[in-house]
Amino acid sequence: MTIIHPTAIVSKHAKIATNVSIGPYTVINANVEIGSNSIIGAFCEIGILNDLSKENRLTIGANSNIRSHSILYSGSNFGDRLETGHHVTLRENITTGSNLRVGSYSDLQGDMEIGNYVRIHSNVHLCKFTKIGNYVFIYQFSITTSDFTPPSETIHPCVINDFAIISVSSVILPGVNIGKHALVGANSTVTKDVEEYALVFGSPARKIKDVREIRLHSESKEIAYPWNLHFRRGFPQEVIENWNQN
Amino acid sequence: MTIIHPTAIVSKHAKIATNVSIGPYTVINANVEIGSNSIIGAFCEIGILNDLSKENRLTIGANSNIRSHSILYSGSNFGDRLETGHHVTLRENITTGSNLRVGSYSDLQGDMEIGNYVRIHSNVHLCKFTKIGNYVFIYQFSITTSDFTPPSETIHPCVINDFAIISVSSVILPGVNIGKHALVGANSTVTKDVEEYALVFGSPARKIKDVREIRLHSESKEIAYPWNLHFRRGFPQEVIENWNQN
Amino acid sequence: MTIIHPTAIVSKHAKIATNVSIGPYTVINANVEIGSNSIIGAFCEIGILNDLSKENRLTIGANSNIRSHSILYSGSNFGDRLETGHHVTLRENITTGSNLRVGSYSDLQGDMEIGNYVRIHSNVHLCKFTKIGNYVFIYQFSITTSDFTPPSETIHPCVINDFAIISVSSVILPGVNIGKHALVGANSTVTKDVEEYALVFGSPARKIKDVREIRLHSESKEIAYPWNLHFRRGFPQEVIENWNQN
Repeated sequence: MTIIHPTAIVSKHAKIATNVSIGPYTVINANVEIGSNSIIGAFCEIGILNDLSKENRLTIGANSNIRSHSILYSGSNFGDRLETGHHVTLRENITTGSNLRVGSYSDLQGDMEIGNYVRIHSNVHLCKFTKIGNYVFIYQFSITTSDFTPPSETIHPCVINDFAIISVSSVILPGVNIGKHALVGANSTVTKDVEEYALVFGSPARKIKDVREIRLHSESKEIAYPWNLHFRRGFPQEVIENWNQN
Repeated sequence: MTIIHPTAIVSKHAKIATNVSIGPYTVINANVEIGSNSIIGAFCEIGILNDLSKENRLTIGANSNIRSHSILYSGSNFGDRLETGHHVTLRENITTGSNLRVGSYSDLQGDMEIGNYVRIHSNVHLCKFTKIGNYVFIYQFSITTSDFTPPSETIHPCVINDFAIISVSSVILPGVNIGKHALVGANSTVTKDVEEYALVFGSPARKIKDVREIRLHSESKEIAYPWNLHFRRGFPQEVIENWNQN
Repeated sequence: MTIIHPTAIVSKHAKIATNVSIGPYTVINANVEIGSNSIIGAFCEIGILNDLSKENRLTIGANSNIRSHSILYSGSNFGDRLETGHHVTLRENITTGSNLRVGSYSDLQGDMEIGNYVRIHSNVHLCKFTKIGNYVFIYQFSITTSDFTPPSETIHPCVINDFAIISVSSVILPGVNIGKHALVGANSTVTKDVEEYALVFGSPARKIKDVREIRLHSESKEIAYPWNLHFRRGFPQEVIENWNQN
């Protein structure tokens, strides 16, 4: 059964599937479509119209959970099981696979494609046209950029490939391609492409080693990367089993 | 015609000019003055009183756009065409020229002067007493500071001069003066004054070159700086034409 | 007298002491206990239930001030005189002493212990299991981490000891112990333990000097550290008088 809090302002034209919960004071515009079994928290603003939106519709897949004070623009299409923290801003023209998580205060500036099972932690800023593969992790205070000579109109977006990990407080400079399974260390400034399986660190970031040489800091001393060898939290079985085909 | 959403809480003492739109659930206090043709989004709190405010009034110029979940304290005076992102916090005693833009999640701590046509992108933190000229750009996750020996009561504010550009994730240390047309590279820590037209980068930041040697990363290979030679988005014609008098 | 704004949604099971003020549109759940003389701002969500909470109760001590758009989960216990900025997120299972301040946009991820008189400025991100002593200062955009090989399940929390100061935009890597009275300089990456009274700076951070060699940048040229020799704002007299017993 769908439960809409009496203080929520939900357009009668919004398409709300079955078993959706909508929290206090949340505003949902006419152009919004929300899949079944989803939860929308309090104080959200869902479906903001914008001159930059390529289409008026905003689609949120089934089994999603949008936490309070979040803002979603129109023109985007989120797959099933979207999960956001609080105070998130998701701008126009974002297309994603399923199982995207976006942490509190993160800001996706729009016009971007994101794959399946991507984990964007809190306080991440992704600029327009950033392209993100599948199973990517991006940690707190990290940012992508697109303009070598700010301000200008020459845009060179970043690409972050499958299974790559950007750790905290790092800057990805314009046009950089982060290879599959690469790991960017904390507080780095990545000025050029990072090859597959490379650990890079520093400002400017330099290759330190191959990630496959890194062991877990645990008694087991297991191999730490590719992380899908040992890390399962919320990921489907095939990611664990088939990592080496990726 | 002014349109106030029925759920907004607007003091009858607030001075709201003609053709203003006020969104759902927004709270506007008695001491607020909003210029004509302005838009105030949802869930905003406008005119918070504070012991630190030098005067009770908050003035927002005409043709402004304050996006949702933003918070503005009393004691400030914003020129025409103020534009904010979402979740912005603008504290007491800020005086600005016209055409200021402040991106989502940015926090201006108050007691500061800001010139005309300044672009503060999202997630910027400006500490009290920062002084900012005209046509300045400050990008995401950058911060100004004022205390060499935190915590202390000895305050040395930063000055950012006309046309300077602070790119992403940089720290400006106390008392630093950023010269006109200077460019601070990504993830830098600026420990001493930056001369006019200098590009600096690193921690601590060192001069790399004169910005006038930098070309656009485009086929045209045009000169990139001063940026007002080629970048026009939202700027008035005289900025383009008269850059060399600045 | 307790004053609850008519638009606030306050559970009749919440325990609200005398002389509490609750702002517009704020939601307070049944499991919440708020001490006397406290202020809860507008648009807050207080007492969110979460599977991760060890107990359902959320306790906020007397004389607290929670500013607007803040979010507090259940399972936490805050001492008297908690003060938060706007847009703050305080997750489950946080236990603190008295006089904690948390600045705007800061995110405490839960499962942590914090001592008395701690000052967390705005935009700070503290990961789960971070342990923080008394009289600690943490400045803007700084972050603690706990996973050497993200993502993994091997967690090594940081410890920040009494009187330590983490200045802006710094990263504390997993398992690091920051000694008493130590000072981490701006934009540093702290990769190993920091000894008592050490000033460290850089990426990776290296010891620069003993903090007791640093003077105030003022005419007095007084000794700057330990800061409790000269800085009194909001601190009790015994901190000033007894610093050398700490």
